Amino acid sequence: MDVKALLEAVKNGQISVAQAEEMLKGLPYDDMGFAMVDNHRKLRTGFAEVIFCQGKTPAQAAAIAKNLARGGGNVLATRAEPEHYDAIKGVLSGAVYNEAARTVYIEQTPPEKIGTVAVCTAGTSDIPVAEEAAVTAEAFGCDVTRIFDVGVAGIHRLFDKLDTIRKANVVIAVAGMEGALASVIGGLVERPVIAVPTSIGYGANFGGLSALLTMLNSCSAGVGVVNIDNGFGAGYLAGQINRLLHDKMTERGV
Amino acid sequence: MDVKALLEAVKNGQISVAQAEEMLKGLPYDDMGFAMVDNHRKLRTGFAEVIFCQGKTPAQAAAIAKNLARGGGNVLATRAEPEHYDAIKGVLSGAVYNEAARTVYIEQTPPEKIGTVAVCTAGTSDIPVAEEAAVTAEAFGCDVTRIFDVGVAGIHRLFDKLDTIRKANVVIAVAGMEGALASVIGGLVERPVIAVPTSIGYGANFGGLSALLTMLNSCSAGVGVVNIDNGFGAGYLAGQINRLLHDKMTERGV
Amino acid sequence: MDVKALLEAVKNGQISVAQAEEMLKGLPYDDMGFAMVDNHRKLRTGFAEVIFCQGKTPAQAAAIAKNLARGGGNVLATRAEPEHYDAIKGVLSGAVYNEAARTVYIEQTPPEKIGTVAVCTAGTSDIPVAEEAAVTAEAFGCDVTRIFDVGVAGIHRLFDKLDTIRKANVVIAVAGMEGALASVIGGLVERPVIAVPTSIGYGANFGGLSALLTMLNSCSAGVGVVNIDNGFGAGYLAGQINRLLHDKMTERGV
Amino acid sequence: MDVKALLEAVKNGQISVAQAEEMLKGLPYDDMGFAMVDNHRKLRTGFAEVIFCQGKTPAQAAAIAKNLARGGGNVLATRAEPEHYDAIKGVLSGAVYNEAARTVYIEQTPPEKIGTVAVCTAGTSDIPVAEEAAVTAEAFGCDVTRIFDVGVAGIHRLFDKLDTIRKANVVIAVAGMEGALASVIGGLVERPVIAVPTSIGYGANFGGLSALLTMLNSCSAGVGVVNIDNGFGAGYLAGQINRLLHDKMTERGV
Amino acid sequence: MDVKALLEAVKNGQISVAQAEEMLKGLPYDDMGFAMVDNHRKLRTGFAEVIFCQGKTPAQAAAIAKNLARGGGNVLATRAEPEHYDAIKGVLSGAVYNEAARTVYIEQTPPEKIGTVAVCTAGTSDIPVAEEAAVTAEAFGCDVTRIFDVGVAGIHRLFDKLDTIRKANVVIAVAGMEGALASVIGGLVERPVIAVPTSIGYGANFGGLSALLTMLNSCSAGVGVVNIDNGFGAGYLAGQINRLLHDKMTERGV
Amino acid sequence: MDVKALLEAVKNGQISVAQAEEMLKGLPYDDMGFAMVDNHRKLRTGFAEVIFCQGKTPAQAAAIAKNLARGGGNVLATRAEPEHYDAIKGVLSGAVYNEAARTVYIEQTPPEKIGTVAVCTAGTSDIPVAEEAAVTAEAFGCDVTRIFDVGVAGIHRLFDKLDTIRKANVVIAVAGMEGALASVIGGLVERPVIAVPTSIGYGANFGGLSALLTMLNSCSAGVGVVNIDNGFGAGYLAGQINRLLHDKMTERGV
Amino acid sequence: MDVKALLEAVKNGQISVAQAEEMLKGLPYDDMGFAMVDNHRKLRTGFAEVIFCQGKTPAQAAAIAKNLARGGGNVLATRAEPEHYDAIKGVLSGAVYNEAARTVYIEQTPPEKIGTVAVCTAGTSDIPVAEEAAVTAEAFGCDVTRIFDVGVAGIHRLFDKLDTIRKANVVIAVAGMEGALASVIGGLVERPVIAVPTSIGYGANFGGLSALLTMLNSCSAGVGVVNIDNGFGAGYLAGQINRLLHDKMTERGV
Amino acid sequence: MDVKALLEAVKNGQISVAQAEEMLKGLPYDDMGFAMVDNHRKLRTGFAEVIFCQGKTPAQAAAIAKNLARGGGNVLATRAEPEHYDAIKGVLSGAVYNEAARTVYIEQTPPEKIGTVAVCTAGTSDIPVAEEAAVTAEAFGCDVTRIFDVGVAGIHRLFDKLDTIRKANVVIAVAGMEGALASVIGGLVERPVIAVPTSIGYGANFGGLSALLTMLNSCSAGVGVVNIDNGFGAGYLAGQINRLLHDKMTERGV
Repeated sequence: MDVKALLEAVKNGQISVAQAEEMLKGLPYDDMGFAMVDNHRKLRTGFAEVIFCQGKTPAQAAAIAKNLARGGGNVLATRAEPEHYDAIKGVLSGAVYNEAARTVYIEQTPPEKIGTVAVCTAGTSDIPVAEEAAVTAEAFGCDVTRIFDVGVAGIHRLFDKLDTIRKANVVIAVAGMEGALASVIGGLVERPVIAVPTSIGYGANFGGLSALLTMLNSCSAGVGVVNIDNGFGAGYLAGQINRLLHDKMTERGV
Repeated sequence: MDVKALLEAVKNGQISVAQAEEMLKGLPYDDMGFAMVDNHRKLRTGFAEVIFCQGKTPAQAAAIAKNLARGGGNVLATRAEPEHYDAIKGVLSGAVYNEAARTVYIEQTPPEKIGTVAVCTAGTSDIPVAEEAAVTAEAFGCDVTRIFDVGVAGIHRLFDKLDTIRKANVVIAVAGMEGALASVIGGLVERPVIAVPTSIGYGANFGGLSALLTMLNSCSAGVGVVNIDNGFGAGYLAGQINRLLHDKMTERGV
Repeated sequence: MDVKALLEAVKNGQISVAQAEEMLKGLPYDDMGFAMVDNHRKLRTGFAEVIFCQGKTPAQAAAIAKNLARGGGNVLATRAEPEHYDAIKGVLSGAVYNEAARTVYIEQTPPEKIGTVAVCTAGTSDIPVAEEAAVTAEAFGCDVTRIFDVGVAGIHRLFDKLDTIRKANVVIAVAGMEGALASVIGGLVERPVIAVPTSIGYGANFGGLSALLTMLNSCSAGVGVVNIDNGFGAGYLAGQINRLLHDKMTERGV
Repeated sequence: MDVKALLEAVKNGQISVAQAEEMLKGLPYDDMGFAMVDNHRKLRTGFAEVIFCQGKTPAQAAAIAKNLARGGGNVLATRAEPEHYDAIKGVLSGAVYNEAARTVYIEQTPPEKIGTVAVCTAGTSDIPVAEEAAVTAEAFGCDVTRIFDVGVAGIHRLFDKLDTIRKANVVIAVAGMEGALASVIGGLVERPVIAVPTSIGYGANFGGLSALLTMLNSCSAGVGVVNIDNGFGAGYLAGQINRLLHDKMTERGV
Repeated sequence: MDVKALLEAVKNGQISVAQAEEMLKGLPYDDMGFAMVDNHRKLRTGFAEVIFCQGKTPAQAAAIAKNLARGGGNVLATRAEPEHYDAIKGVLSGAVYNEAARTVYIEQTPPEKIGTVAVCTAGTSDIPVAEEAAVTAEAFGCDVTRIFDVGVAGIHRLFDKLDTIRKANVVIAVAGMEGALASVIGGLVERPVIAVPTSIGYGANFGGLSALLTMLNSCSAGVGVVNIDNGFGAGYLAGQINRLLHDKMTERGV
Repeated sequence: MDVKALLEAVKNGQISVAQAEEMLKGLPYDDMGFAMVDNHRKLRTGFAEVIFCQGKTPAQAAAIAKNLARGGGNVLATRAEPEHYDAIKGVLSGAVYNEAARTVYIEQTPPEKIGTVAVCTAGTSDIPVAEEAAVTAEAFGCDVTRIFDVGVAGIHRLFDKLDTIRKANVVIAVAGMEGALASVIGGLVERPVIAVPTSIGYGANFGGLSALLTMLNSCSAGVGVVNIDNGFGAGYLAGQINRLLHDKMTERGV
Repeated sequence: MDVKALLEAVKNGQISVAQAEEMLKGLPYDDMGFAMVDNHRKLRTGFAEVIFCQGKTPAQAAAIAKNLARGGGNVLATRAEPEHYDAIKGVLSGAVYNEAARTVYIEQTPPEKIGTVAVCTAGTSDIPVAEEAAVTAEAFGCDVTRIFDVGVAGIHRLFDKLDTIRKANVVIAVAGMEGALASVIGGLVERPVIAVPTSIGYGANFGGLSALLTMLNSCSAGVGVVNIDNGFGAGYLAGQINRLLHDKMTERGV
Repeated sequence: MDVKALLEAVKNGQISVAQAEEMLKGLPYDDMGFAMVDNHRKLRTGFAEVIFCQGKTPAQAAAIAKNLARGGGNVLATRAEPEHYDAIKGVLSGAVYNEAARTVYIEQTPPEKIGTVAVCTAGTSDIPVAEEAAVTAEAFGCDVTRIFDVGVAGIHRLFDKLDTIRKANVVIAVAGMEGALASVIGGLVERPVIAVPTSIGYGANFGGLSALLTMLNSCSAGVGVVNIDNGFGAGYLAGQINRLLHDKMTERGV
């Protein structure tokens, strides 16, 4: 539930006070038996709760989605299989499925624009994780530029795109195998870099461990790492950084 | 070498054109035989090169420090043993040693203020790593608030400090043992959180691996992780975020 | 076989001496060829043998269940697939299947009440493991309170339930991902805490290793850890603690 | 600080109200700059804070010890090197050092007796860890029986002591190398077993990992595991179990 | 190919010299293109080559089996799926499949009896690995006694069988989970013990790693360890030990 | 795209200047949206880009293959499932599938012969990886001799082939299980040895880790290791070595 | 204590019945407070208890040695530092120190000869572990042939010694780095092979893990593995095998 | 012993036939008791045996060095501490110590020039490993160009040196931390690249494991990896490649 959106709807007369009262019963969280939906999270951490579908039944995911959608806020679900999408679509007709990213997104109000993100991948196989990052960042109001397949095996491809990358507020570097992309970008840009190791590869990549260690040990400073394949986490952190910027700008009336 | 500082000194007549010419010979890097000092880094990534003393002789560290100090910029050395400090002090008299953080800092020009950082630790033993983060962030122009020993074994201590923590642009969470601090803070603040696992602990902490995995697997989103004991990396990344803010503010003339 | 229950049945005339003699042939264990059923265990360790179905055929599980059910005691089977349940149901009509917990339970005599347990989970996905713990503890005579989805990403949900948690004799904390729940609870209650890491998560959680290490390295004392996903072990240990209490109370005639 | 002990001293006239007021300023914690001493812990978790000396300077340890000793409670410090002992002895004359256990203990009031613990080791080399467990349990009011060198290589030694072990409320099994002791004891007693893996051994024991995995995978149920070499944690958990018993007995007026 | 058996057949007139000449073409190995069948192995290491079916097509396995069967020796295939059995049966009609052990065995001449082996398992789930060991040892001429489900959770079951176990020349201890069985047996018998860790278990057993480390770190001496689930290796080594005995006896004319 | 082949076609009048101009638009790379095809690679590293099919859809693989085939060069795709082959065959009729190696190869111009390679395997199960190495080396112009199933369990088979192996310029040693083959060959030949660990085996081979560590720790010098199961990498490196030889010979006019 | 030796001394009149009675008080074990000396072990497992000095003080080692020496049996101490030797020598004047093997041996009666062992090493650096194996086997009555520095990097050295190796009843293969020696020997001899991985090496040998995995994954069957650097365990197991032979021979009156 | 050099000395009359006969007694190896010096190695693998000093006493190292120096060949010792150097210098006066590389080299005949190698490092701290590689390659007749401190954090430094690097026959890339240098170079040059991970770094680099995994997973093909810190292995392999070139050139009379 997006409390701020709800209150504005009340103010604008879109929702009656009685309706709002009913809706607000779920504050600070709704005890749904199997889940305690954290309706308070947006006030506390800036973004509403996101549904992590893995390990949840389609019915559970749909019930939580419906709960979160009350009041007009946007809802994002990650690691969503087609079955999750079907169930959510059944209760929220505007749901959109991004197959590569495995996300379901219900946009009831376009998010306020808060800043720019460049999402880069080393290879074609890293695209699903990158898409999860991009969709997440977009849901939180970021403008996302996608720059795929610019890994260090053909580093001239990266250099060609460097001007574009340097224009973004935040850079997300998604790479599997040896994960060197994050270090190279970290040495070339003056903006925060978020590194996402992927489990792409074979042999001694041990499910993404090789890329993870590479990124943690990056000789370039200014690189923060999220979990293997965690595109969502990277998109969220990029959103946090851009929202910091946006809030400070707003405070100053810019 | 701080190229911008140098050029301003030329403009202000503090340095003659001939002197500056001599100094600029080291662009884009100085080949010192054992090291190629990256004088171009500040232009490229926003911060000047920092000396990582581990594995370098005191003489090497001092030579690089002297090289970097030309032109009036500030110089930071990390993982500095007292011998490194002694050697640097011998060539740069204003060097200051922070024993806990194991840093040497030579400030020739106060850095421009770019934003705020809160550095939190779970325990007393995490302080050295936290100090490295704090000193680094300060060297890059951040205002740092230190909040130590607020781990989750006595979580009321953390709650007492929450208002202070929430005021910072960026939060650095430093924790060893099980490293739960980052998750708890990540669930409570709306700003980017940088998590630093430390190697503090015993038994199955495996040199910080337990805290590292905890932080990577954090159930709270918006957390970027740096390497074990890498206070420097966290301070640097916090600096990158604050500088993004500062640059954008400056562009808008705020 | 529940020897004590059998002897009481003899005393009460429910079973003849000859029948009991036949039944007692299986002491201290029954050699079934593929298994040596440990009918002596209840006398020795306080609880009857439990059937671990994984790696056993449905027929084997059913045969052992039937053997253990002689004499009127209760029988618990864990890691039971529907096929195991079907086979057991075929020989013991009162068998009840808990799908989430994957347990089969045959209650022939209600267990004596021995104390209270609170079973908490960090997330919705941890519920199957928590249910295994709860069902096990209940089978051994514990009163179980279930408190699900109170992980540290929304820590206010945990604080709301703290009074309830504090009332239990023993607390079981079930958590995957970073597993911080056990540390936070351990710092807030004055009762033994049993931590169960789960394999829920992705990326660098390595099948539950991240939560396991977190729990072993907990900065809060008073936390005992069982194996990954081992809800049964946690429920059993909680039963042992409550039975200690019950036995001592009984000794003192309370 | 032992708040209950302090209040009783006030009631008994041993401490004036003004003195007590001064002392209570440290509630719920004392901010000592480098440490936030958790004076509230005893009320919250049943036992006062214990000083973990590793990573603390002798002076820090002594300052915290002095702070905790106010009001007449007992103070325990673990992982204490002789230097820590010397510093603590300098501020608290009654400090006693246990060299094997590496503990410092200051007893100002004999702890109330709460129950019994048997501490068993597999070998002679496991004794230091076992002593840490024993000293901790004693400090919290447990009566401890020590049974050392009864590992499974000569299992008749264990069987000889079985009657003694079975009499205890809680059994702590301390073992390195392959750590089989916990499984064997777990299969023989009807009380909670706390397993402590030790780092004793060589080759592929990997600093205690082999014993840790053995204990986590124990085929005997009812075994809770603490971190490698964590005698303190085992003694503390044994104390929690016995205190549960003691509190319930007291409630019932036994 | 069993060269000795072949030569005896020549001597006895069962095979003509011309036939034998043809057959001996495959010495010291047959180059089958995809495999070099090591017909010389029996002369060199005492036992004929065994077919490891995993990773081989049924047709390849059958072709190798046929090749090895020439000359009248016995043939053993391990890790054989039913498809392998079907293919082998198609070319060698006397093939016998042991489903639990996943072995195919073609006995053309009963092996000479060379000594005794006791194969013990900790649990029911370890039986497949134990059967592989037993079948292998039998194929090499050992008399095998099977003693299953005598793990340390109910150690009285083991003690009951101790006399039987002690009578064997060699003891094979097969155990998963924590694998303590090998240590306990090693401390009780005066014969060589071969320990086989199995991948049975869950959670932190990491595919048998926990049992493997337990066995390598056994506090009982006289224990040799083979790879996880490697029943074949254990049976083979037991065969080597018994054959040593048999050969020496034969030398002495006993 | 093979730029040199293209230019020669222009020179020979096989392709018009206008056609060539169109084709060269893809230099230095073609941005296909999901992939940036590195047409410049052959000029830079000596061999054209190879399509790694794993993680790519058949359609993507086919599109890249078509792109690379322009201008008449040869195209190699690895880790190709039958579906990839079908898709590629649909756009490039001359495509040849090697089922064991899982490669698709389109030869438009026979590659220039550059030198010899011996590809050895320890066992039959290592053949697929060895074939990938062989096919790759052949595509780059090497003459390959295959020597399979010469592992150290029957070392006489290796010695028989030693003269053949010693004649090759480069030796590729492919082995799973304990991977000793590389060390043994490394101690016997005076040519560069490329070791390829395979994931063949069971138990504690941990997906090829055992063979990888063996090869990295080889007591024989002159051995370079590639990733587990990475036949392609070994074939490529062998090609690089032979091409060095070929180029130098050509320079000298030999 | 060697009970059989003691009884023979009684029979021969070397010890009076009263003395023997006093000595036998320590059966089945002596409770020395810090250690329970297992005087019964020789009767049970064939060899007397051996003192593992690591983790024991010199005084403890000496006290145990003295205890074990009663009755005229031989005493072996392993992992003995010079300080342990000095202490033991103080109470048992005939103690002999083997510096390479770090063993102390007190021979009061020459052990009966039970069979032959060949101890082979891959390199010079493996000699200390090999010596521990050799000294142990000798103490248990084996005739030991030492064959050092025959690793596979120069395999002709091994082949030269093959006849000697093949003559032994049992072969111990000691190797660090990649540990291939055990596989090669296992493929060449028809006797049981005991493999001892050593921690010799650097880089990715991870304290002997590389050699350990190699040996466990040996493609040659008939190889039993002991813990890293565990020369004692290998010597003991070789002794068990030879004693089996010796006992059976004796039974048959050979 | 350099057999070819010896025979040439005989031919030239520098050594008498009788002297040569005496010297040749050590063929194919010298049994020195603790070591079997492999005098045959140069004939077999192209380079003479090199002394790995780690784990050898200075006296042993010196004795082997003296043995190898007979006949006029050159001798190389690696991992040599100053004590090893002192001992070797005592028996071979021309010994030269390279402190950074920890090598001792005795050159009695300048090695024939066989080709070029470029040795690159990512940082200053990687120089010792790079020097070991360089010294080794030089001892085997390579011309070595050293290019240090060109890691990817300041990638323009690498690009400046690219022309120099591309001129070498073989490139050795030495890097710790995240080890990305090998991938970047592999994507830019058309020559074989040998990657050497170093143990330089901190935190989750796990003694070089991070760089090792990076290099094994390199997205650039044509990269062979040697063990962590194994500069010797890299130099040796580079020598093998250059010698292949040299031999083939010589065969053709170039």
